[in-house]
Amino acid sequence: MERICVIGAGVIGSLFAGHLAQVAEVSVLTRRQEHADALTSEGLRVSGRSDVHSRITASADPAEIPPFDLGIVATKATGLEAAAETLQGHFPEATMMTTLNGLGAEEVVRRHGNWPIISAVTFMSGTRHEDTHVEYILDTETWLGPYEDTPYERVEEAAALIRSSGLKAVAMPDLRPAQWSKLIFNATVNSVAALTGLPHDPHFAAEAEPTDLGHLVHDLVDEGKAVAAAAGIELHDDPWEMNVLATQRGSAHYPSMLEDVEAHRPTEVDLITGALVREAERHGVDVPLHTALYRLVKAKEDSWS
Amino acid sequence: MERICVIGAGVIGSLFAGHLAQVAEVSVLTRRQEHADALTSEGLRVSGRSDVHSRITASADPAEIPPFDLGIVATKATGLEAAAETLQGHFPEATMMTTLNGLGAEEVVRRHGNWPIISAVTFMSGTRHEDTHVEYILDTETWLGPYEDTPYERVEEAAALIRSSGLKAVAMPDLRPAQWSKLIFNATVNSVAALTGLPHDPHFAAEAEPTDLGHLVHDLVDEGKAVAAAAGIELHDDPWEMNVLATQRGSAHYPSMLEDVEAHRPTEVDLITGALVREAERHGVDVPLHTALYRLVKAKEDSWS
Repeated sequence: MERICVIGAGVIGSLFAGHLAQVAEVSVLTRRQEHADALTSEGLRVSGRSDVHSRITASADPAEIPPFDLGIVATKATGLEAAAETLQGHFPEATMMTTLNGLGAEEVVRRHGNWPIISAVTFMSGTRHEDTHVEYILDTETWLGPYEDTPYERVEEAAALIRSSGLKAVAMPDLRPAQWSKLIFNATVNSVAALTGLPHDPHFAAEAEPTDLGHLVHDLVDEGKAVAAAAGIELHDDPWEMNVLATQRGSAHYPSMLEDVEAHRPTEVDLITGALVREAERHGVDVPLHTALYRLVKAKEDSWS
Repeated sequence: MERICVIGAGVIGSLFAGHLAQVAEVSVLTRRQEHADALTSEGLRVSGRSDVHSRITASADPAEIPPFDLGIVATKATGLEAAAETLQGHFPEATMMTTLNGLGAEEVVRRHGNWPIISAVTFMSGTRHEDTHVEYILDTETWLGPYEDTPYERVEEAAALIRSSGLKAVAMPDLRPAQWSKLIFNATVNSVAALTGLPHDPHFAAEAEPTDLGHLVHDLVDEGKAVAAAAGIELHDDPWEMNVLATQRGSAHYPSMLEDVEAHRPTEVDLITGALVREAERHGVDVPLHTALYRLVKAKEDSWS
């Protein structure tokens, strides 16, 4: 794996591209051509936990992207279908790795080609300052696992490549326990943040008073755990403990769904909370609170459209 | 009942004061002295469904308010305790009428004096343009009933007085069926509007798609009806029908809790949803959705404090 293409240059895509360009040949497939032009002419800078400035090739046109061995799909959920469509029929030798929140990104990619697929969840975070500058904030791990019959060696190879670039990555034979832990965590924290306007701060773990928000967060996590249990998944981490730990960090994280709400953009709720609600239905589990929050976030989107 | 004092000159208080001053001697007890000064010097104007301009006496100091027969308590829930405290020890000959949303305003007034109390709920609405000008928008009824052992004749007398001023009013021997209908309606519509940013529009009655908001509104109404049933209340109106009818009016109403949220003010959630949740607890009924929305609105208040 010496040639990488990052598909989608938001925060996560930019963190991968900037680091990997230090150890491999990196191209970036963007949605906007002016974004590609800026990256090609100015390069991509990562500040914060890292300090790199990488030369990369970028384009919004897949015909201008050179062949690659590993495609890192890092679009937002709302841009995934369009991105996968542009890949269709190209890059037959590639392995595709999905890093999106929620569940189901692999199925969307699969509908557009029979590349081997690596599932991934990432806990990295950053802030985008410009098209060509992203700040690396939380240097936490990315976890990778095989999707369908992708050979595990390829997963290990991708994880080793990412580690060699200075990021943290771990290969796992079965990613679903980690994906589900993050799904339950994300469905809970993102929708509550989107509706209350609170960043992920200590309110989310407070359970002293009956009206404290932590009770609701706990109930949402418990609904999610019931779905995981019905789906036969043994969670990798307890989402409630993930929540408590995250709120004990010094600075409160701004969940992406809250950023979307504040910018009046469509949110990823369909692929996060929506995925959990659909899994609950498939396995016959009642999730009245996630269903309620799903409807509230959808209605909130309608309030500005 | 020839001398009236309106306590709290928001929209509802101003509608009562402006109209009643046409048929009785009206004073207004305000929170802010500059509001009182403006009312005393400029009078109070009501436009829209009515067109009156009334001379009134106003003060923020109860010692400057002349004796009265009927006190109309029309503060916001958040201002009730302070207002009732200023009344304590004064106006022994008065009957007090509470017009606040939610449940429990009568108890707060009772803690500060043993005046006879009339319970009321009002469906009027208006928009405040200035301290001295309010627009009368929905000319719907105010319903009155006795609290504790207040003689029913006094309730009928108050209703007749209000009607003679050009407003709509109905006396009822037992107001609780109407109070509870409005409580369930308000707890549902206000908290959903506060969280989604939507005015009370057709989204609240939409049930075509599984993610439609009307399902949540319906579930919230059903929780409220279960509490009413456990409390032995036969509702005067079905809150779901009230909701559907209200969303079929031409222009969407802005629930007061949404206005409070947009202005980053404390909301009335403790006296509306909070009252319903406390009644549910008292009667051993589970209301997980109202409890969830209660916590979300409280957390939303925390997001700007």
